[in-house]
Amino acid sequence: MRIPKAIRALIESFEKLPGIGPKTAQRLTYYLLHVPQTELEDFAESLSSLKKDTLVCSVCKNVAEGNPCPICTDRNRDESMVMVVEQPLNILAIERTGKYRGVYHVLHGSINPLDNIGPDELYIDDLLKRMKGSDGKGVKEVIIATNPTMEGEATAMYLAKKLKIGNGKLKITRLGMGMPTGADLDYADEATITQAIEGRRVI
Amino acid sequence: MRIPKAIRALIESFEKLPGIGPKTAQRLTYYLLHVPQTELEDFAESLSSLKKDTLVCSVCKNVAEGNPCPICTDRNRDESMVMVVEQPLNILAIERTGKYRGVYHVLHGSINPLDNIGPDELYIDDLLKRMKGSDGKGVKEVIIATNPTMEGEATAMYLAKKLKIGNGKLKITRLGMGMPTGADLDYADEATITQAIEGRRVI
Repeated sequence: MRIPKAIRALIESFEKLPGIGPKTAQRLTYYLLHVPQTELEDFAESLSSLKKDTLVCSVCKNVAEGNPCPICTDRNRDESMVMVVEQPLNILAIERTGKYRGVYHVLHGSINPLDNIGPDELYIDDLLKRMKGSDGKGVKEVIIATNPTMEGEATAMYLAKKLKIGNGKLKITRLGMGMPTGADLDYADEATITQAIEGRRVI
Repeated sequence: MRIPKAIRALIESFEKLPGIGPKTAQRLTYYLLHVPQTELEDFAESLSSLKKDTLVCSVCKNVAEGNPCPICTDRNRDESMVMVVEQPLNILAIERTGKYRGVYHVLHGSINPLDNIGPDELYIDDLLKRMKGSDGKGVKEVIIATNPTMEGEATAMYLAKKLKIGNGKLKITRLGMGMPTGADLDYADEATITQAIEGRRVI
C-alpha cells in the first residue's frame, strides 16, 4: 500500500528533527490524524512564525522578541560579568537558578571539526569584538559555561586563549565541575570523580 | 528571562504530542531556529494539509487519498478475508510482509474503559454493518489483529462475540501468538512462553 502523499510529507518533516526516527515520525503523524484541524493550524502557524517573530540580539546573540534582548536592556543586570554559553536554551537553565545577575553571550554551537564547525561558524568573533568595544571596557570577568563535553572543552580552551590575548587583566573562569547534587559516588564515572577531587573546597 | 512568545507557542505544540516531554519540546524548538525558513514553511504546510488532503475510506476506515481507498478498490485483493486492525499504521506493518492479500477494517483504537473509549467510539458498528451488507455476504474469515495488549485482547473478545451473533458460520481467527523471530527463550516473559506452548505446531 502506498502511504498518502500528505501523510508521507509530514512523516518526512518529523524525520528531519534530531532524535526522531522513522517509527516515531510515523507514530506522531498518525496521532495527528486524530487531532482537530484547529490544533493542526495552530501548530503550523507557530512553526512558520517561529523565526519571523524572533530576533537574534545584536549584543549577546540570544534569541528574543526584541533587539537588544530583555537581558541586555535590563539596567539591573551586572554588565561587568559575561557568561558564554553554547545555546539560547542554556540561558534558561542558568536563569532558573536565579543566582546569576550578569549578562550573556551565546555562541550558537561549539567547535566541532567532525561536523565542520570551526570558530568562524560561531559568534566567537562577535564576542572578541564586544570585549574590545565600549561595552567591553567594563567587563571584569568572563565565565565560560560551554558544556563539559569534548567540543565544549575545546571551545572553552580556544576562547580562553583568544580572550587573554585581547586583555591580559580579564578574569576568565569556567563553571565548577564535580559531583552533581543528589548523585552517588558509587555510580559516578572516573572523569567526574577526578574533577571533584581536583576541584575540592575547604568547608 | 521570559521565553519569546513565538518559541513558547511552538514548545507547547510539541508538548501535546505523545511521548514528547517539556525538555524534548524545548530541544526540538530551539533546533528549528537554525533551520531555513523554507523548511519550516514546508513542515507547516504538511501539518495543515494533513487532514485536508486525506480521507477516511467509507468501506474499511483506512486513511487514504481517495474514497474508497486503494486496497478496497483493488480487484486483485481477496474480499473473502477481512483483517481487523486498531490503527491505519498497522496496515503498513502487515503490508510490509507481502503475505496478506485480503482486505482490512480499521477500528481507530481499542476498547479502553480507563480512557473512556467504549465500542461506540470505534468503527465497530461499521464493521458489523459491513458484514451484514451486500459486501459482507462473501466474507468467509475475519482475522482479528488487534494488539496483544489488555485493551487489544478485550476488543478482540468483544468483536468475536458480536461477529458470531451476526453470522454463526463466519470463521473468526486471531493472529498467532508466541515467540517472535530472533528472540531468546531465556529472555522471553512467562505470558509469551505460555502462548507459545499453547500455540505449538506439528512440524
